[in-house]
Amino acid sequence: MHTDLVAALDIGGTKIAGALVDGHGQIVVRAQRATPAQQDGETVMGAVREVLGELTAAPLWDRATALGIGSAGPVDASAGTVSPVNVPGWRDYPLVRRVQDAVGGLPVELIGDGVAITAAEHWQGAARGHDNALCMVVSTGVGGGLVLNGQLHPGPTGNAGHIGHISVDLDGDPCPCGSRGCVERIASGPNIARRAIENGWRPDPDGDTSAAAVAAAARAGDPVALASFERAAQALAAGIAATATLVEIDIAVIGGGVGKAGDVLFTPLRKALSDYATLSFVQRLEITPAQMGTDAGLVGAAAAALAKRADAAAV
Amino acid sequence: MHTDLVAALDIGGTKIAGALVDGHGQIVVRAQRATPAQQDGETVMGAVREVLGELTAAPLWDRATALGIGSAGPVDASAGTVSPVNVPGWRDYPLVRRVQDAVGGLPVELIGDGVAITAAEHWQGAARGHDNALCMVVSTGVGGGLVLNGQLHPGPTGNAGHIGHISVDLDGDPCPCGSRGCVERIASGPNIARRAIENGWRPDPDGDTSAAAVAAAARAGDPVALASFERAAQALAAGIAATATLVEIDIAVIGGGVGKAGDVLFTPLRKALSDYATLSFVQRLEITPAQMGTDAGLVGAAAAALAKRADAAAV
Repeated sequence: MHTDLVAALDIGGTKIAGALVDGHGQIVVRAQRATPAQQDGETVMGAVREVLGELTAAPLWDRATALGIGSAGPVDASAGTVSPVNVPGWRDYPLVRRVQDAVGGLPVELIGDGVAITAAEHWQGAARGHDNALCMVVSTGVGGGLVLNGQLHPGPTGNAGHIGHISVDLDGDPCPCGSRGCVERIASGPNIARRAIENGWRPDPDGDTSAAAVAAAARAGDPVALASFERAAQALAAGIAATATLVEIDIAVIGGGVGKAGDVLFTPLRKALSDYATLSFVQRLEITPAQMGTDAGLVGAAAAALAKRADAAAV
Repeated sequence: MHTDLVAALDIGGTKIAGALVDGHGQIVVRAQRATPAQQDGETVMGAVREVLGELTAAPLWDRATALGIGSAGPVDASAGTVSPVNVPGWRDYPLVRRVQDAVGGLPVELIGDGVAITAAEHWQGAARGHDNALCMVVSTGVGGGLVLNGQLHPGPTGNAGHIGHISVDLDGDPCPCGSRGCVERIASGPNIARRAIENGWRPDPDGDTSAAAVAAAARAGDPVALASFERAAQALAAGIAATATLVEIDIAVIGGGVGKAGDVLFTPLRKALSDYATLSFVQRLEITPAQMGTDAGLVGAAAAALAKRADAAAV
């Protein structure tokens, strides 16, 4: 028996990925282009059209009933536009309309990339079965998304869950976003490395100054490297505790490159969480690594399209 | 034509108020007792029973179809219990069952007092017509609640929106809750007064060291008093911006005694908000004083009971 599919786009500063996804979250067709991030907006859209061209040329395309887009933010789901920080040619770019034009009027759902990752972890990954969850990506930046009352919570503009840019240190260092002491300013990979170097950590002769190299040094017992991860863990814990205190979540899922650091991150994170998550209703909060891989953005965009289609069918 | 009513209880450390409320939020019968807060749990429950006794004796009681309780927290709506900080005789006290026993099995809905205030402001006050709102009480403590997607968001235990105990200063002063740098630790009335006194402000000969006295000094131009309100405004702004960045709200409503300070609070608060609410999707956030008076807790508890009854009818 034939079942419906949904189409998905995952738009980032490095690559533009597309897929046809079935009702079990399996990718049955995929396409990908590099993002011409530094070129003009129409050139970027040209790469999106090439990805969509491959998808629409697939025999299975006829079974696609909706299309979900997860995009680097900020996005504006209410206006159907995107302004990805790392794609300067797109500012308030009408991506939803352009994609609809390219695929012949299929219903299109737009969400931010942190929300998409969250939809994927809730559907198929570590947040499965949890009605109230925060999912985070800790990497070059810090992003996230929320599941509340069993439903994805994108917010009116598709940007909810932006935990990387809440201030946990109101007098802290200026953040490129314009605020101070943001979680991302303390806990992102580049900031973990920067802080280690500022405090005297020196990389191996190969010159690798990534957060992964700092994590390796921390595992080998380097106190400066350990301290940099502990500070990142403290900021993440304060942000996660704030989220739990504000909306009540029972699990926080952490993915991204820094999330892969393992005990070097999770041990101080669990300890710091007990310092900041103090009220009775947040004390049982669980912290766990993400389970979805590099397809999380595609699978999550598909999940959002499926949810939208189900809502429309219910009306 | 007779219309249905709901009963409401507002339980605080000072008073226990009860009412019958109509579908327009008008209180048609009311009763009140002082809270015997320092006595044993059954004595406190005795005062609740007296309030309920007055309500059930009213001829209109027969039209009550549900009962809402807004209680000082923490509460646990999933267990039906309350543990108000200022009522030591009640710890995990089974208030929902005891109230149900006293009123003959009427459906009972329990929420925290910050959530109740929010329900009232959304139904009748400053958050009316807003689908995504944060409502706060800035007073002896700092409490709050959330409206998301047009619905009250109590969270699974009825405590969501607890903005007073999110940390905005992760290395800051210890808070009685066990965390550090909480919004309440910086912005509550007693902390505004404490900080002013520590920095050299001296009260009038009448010895009034309340936040209201500090506000009067600030209005008269006292720089230390002004600075204490500015610091409180900074912490409130960081917390409100964090909330908006996490869940997307378009309005923050501020009530409570400190909220009545007027421009001394709202001018630096709006300025600080522009420092912390930097992402595009939170920049249009509006801040406004609360509109509901001392009946907000009762009206909000009634609103929660009405919403629950509507949900039950829809199933």
